[in-house]
Amino acid sequence: MSIEQIQSQFALGIDIGGTNTKFGLVNQRGEVLIKDRLKTTDYPEFIDFVDELYNKIKPWIDEYAQDAVFKGIGVGAPNGNFYKGTIEQAANLQWKGIVPISNIITEKFGVPVKVTNDANAAALGEMMYGAARGMKDFIMITLGTGVGGGIVSGGKLVYGHDGYAGELGHSIVKPGGRKHWNTGSRGSLEAYASATGIAITAKKMRAEFPDSLLNNYHEDEINAKTVFDCAEQGDEIAREVFRYTGQKLGEALANFVMFSSPEAIFLFGGVIQSGKYITEPAKMYMERNLFPIFQNKVKLIFSELDEADAAILGASALVWA
Amino acid sequence: MSIEQIQSQFALGIDIGGTNTKFGLVNQRGEVLIKDRLKTTDYPEFIDFVDELYNKIKPWIDEYAQDAVFKGIGVGAPNGNFYKGTIEQAANLQWKGIVPISNIITEKFGVPVKVTNDANAAALGEMMYGAARGMKDFIMITLGTGVGGGIVSGGKLVYGHDGYAGELGHSIVKPGGRKHWNTGSRGSLEAYASATGIAITAKKMRAEFPDSLLNNYHEDEINAKTVFDCAEQGDEIAREVFRYTGQKLGEALANFVMFSSPEAIFLFGGVIQSGKYITEPAKMYMERNLFPIFQNKVKLIFSELDEADAAILGASALVWA
Repeated sequence: MSIEQIQSQFALGIDIGGTNTKFGLVNQRGEVLIKDRLKTTDYPEFIDFVDELYNKIKPWIDEYAQDAVFKGIGVGAPNGNFYKGTIEQAANLQWKGIVPISNIITEKFGVPVKVTNDANAAALGEMMYGAARGMKDFIMITLGTGVGGGIVSGGKLVYGHDGYAGELGHSIVKPGGRKHWNTGSRGSLEAYASATGIAITAKKMRAEFPDSLLNNYHEDEINAKTVFDCAEQGDEIAREVFRYTGQKLGEALANFVMFSSPEAIFLFGGVIQSGKYITEPAKMYMERNLFPIFQNKVKLIFSELDEADAAILGASALVWA
Repeated sequence: MSIEQIQSQFALGIDIGGTNTKFGLVNQRGEVLIKDRLKTTDYPEFIDFVDELYNKIKPWIDEYAQDAVFKGIGVGAPNGNFYKGTIEQAANLQWKGIVPISNIITEKFGVPVKVTNDANAAALGEMMYGAARGMKDFIMITLGTGVGGGIVSGGKLVYGHDGYAGELGHSIVKPGGRKHWNTGSRGSLEAYASATGIAITAKKMRAEFPDSLLNNYHEDEINAKTVFDCAEQGDEIAREVFRYTGQKLGEALANFVMFSSPEAIFLFGGVIQSGKYITEPAKMYMERNLFPIFQNKVKLIFSELDEADAAILGASALVWA
């Protein structure tokens, strides 16, 4: 196949989130040709959601298909199952039970559809278009409203027996610890290192330290962003919130490293805006908990993908993976 | 290649342990043709160790090579590195630093040598000759003096970037918990679920409960076997030792499952003689800590391999893997 032919293909990437769905056409160089979004929550029925997607995207496809081949559709979604092409029991989506999204979307668009969860899609995107190019063993951690994981081993995504491998946010980092608001489990990484977890930590800590700048905000305003603002202004309590978050993250990362021995761990998502306040303690506690043969080897890297496009890119990467 | 040709090959499997080294010739059906052992600790120099191995094994090879082809040598060893063919910084061996065992053994025997750690070898053996035949995703946990892990994902052993993946015994199950006698880390799985860890737990518990049958033994006699004997006699404290061990194991297993989503977890090694006293709580705590999509799916299975031959079989499986 000539280079010209490779460039003249495009894919559709769809990233389904609990609140918003982002989608766009992507060429094989990883350039987003055109994109848009819609509110996931506006469509209680999945079939209506797909109809609306089709109405928005069909004109784009018609236009780009004049010069290039439409290769297929990749979808990143919570609890997306690669083997079955389904979304199953996704806590953050209003479509309940098992939704055969691959079949439904294929029927509408007439091309093959591949599905995986959002963190796996991010890992694929990083491997094809980001800082993981050429790496065969790495882990992607997405730090946002939730915490997700995508594991690449020997150059391939680890899907596991049933397609659900990499649920790293549900790893227990503190047995008997903080109760998760959704799953009810105790002491999971997500309970501490997600945006929701950081807000919980911040609310607890500001209650103990009345002088903290965190007390200048209304309860509803406490989030990773406001904690970051306080930390930047020198507030020690806000910094302690991130240090504690980083500690829990680092302890979890150490266990991940001893499992799959990656070359690097990538951090991606809104929470990484907090930068060194989280990564320095994360790195320190990771190293401290590592068996000596792993120490000072694993790079901790912020994702290189532009956050606005990364979800679309990652989903589209499924088409070429 | 005809079936007859496949059967007329044999390999040498060598399992290097801190105390004993077991070795034997194995045919491709997984039958141990002849075997022996020597004391690892008798050979402070690795070169002398290899000379002695050669003296013992060369006559066997000469005999079997009359009817079959000698394909190669597989070695399972603590900290054995598949990529480099080395043993590196192995805490339980007297050969210090980096030992290029693959080169040294190849030079002596004149055939290719593959190396990995003992738990990976056990996983390969289970996949080729045991209950994991046909499985593409499973985890092997070796419970002996130490705790090791071998991970198979998509039908392949997970080696990771540097060949050291699967050091599951060093996973932290209780941050800030029991200090490991060798590594100094706090709260690792090995500190609780190894034979050494069980003895420590038993000594602590019997001190608190003077009526326990465990107090009928001398300090040096407290080990997984004597705890088992007391449990069998109905001693509640001995049973509690195993329950606690199983809890820590189960909490670790839950995290492993959420990482690689295996079809089954195999338990192997001396500690599994304790049977249901450990596995029932392990299963319970594993399920309790699993994210719902993983619950009631993963089989917890005792290895099918005969323990006397398993180490040799596993090492020899490297030759055909």
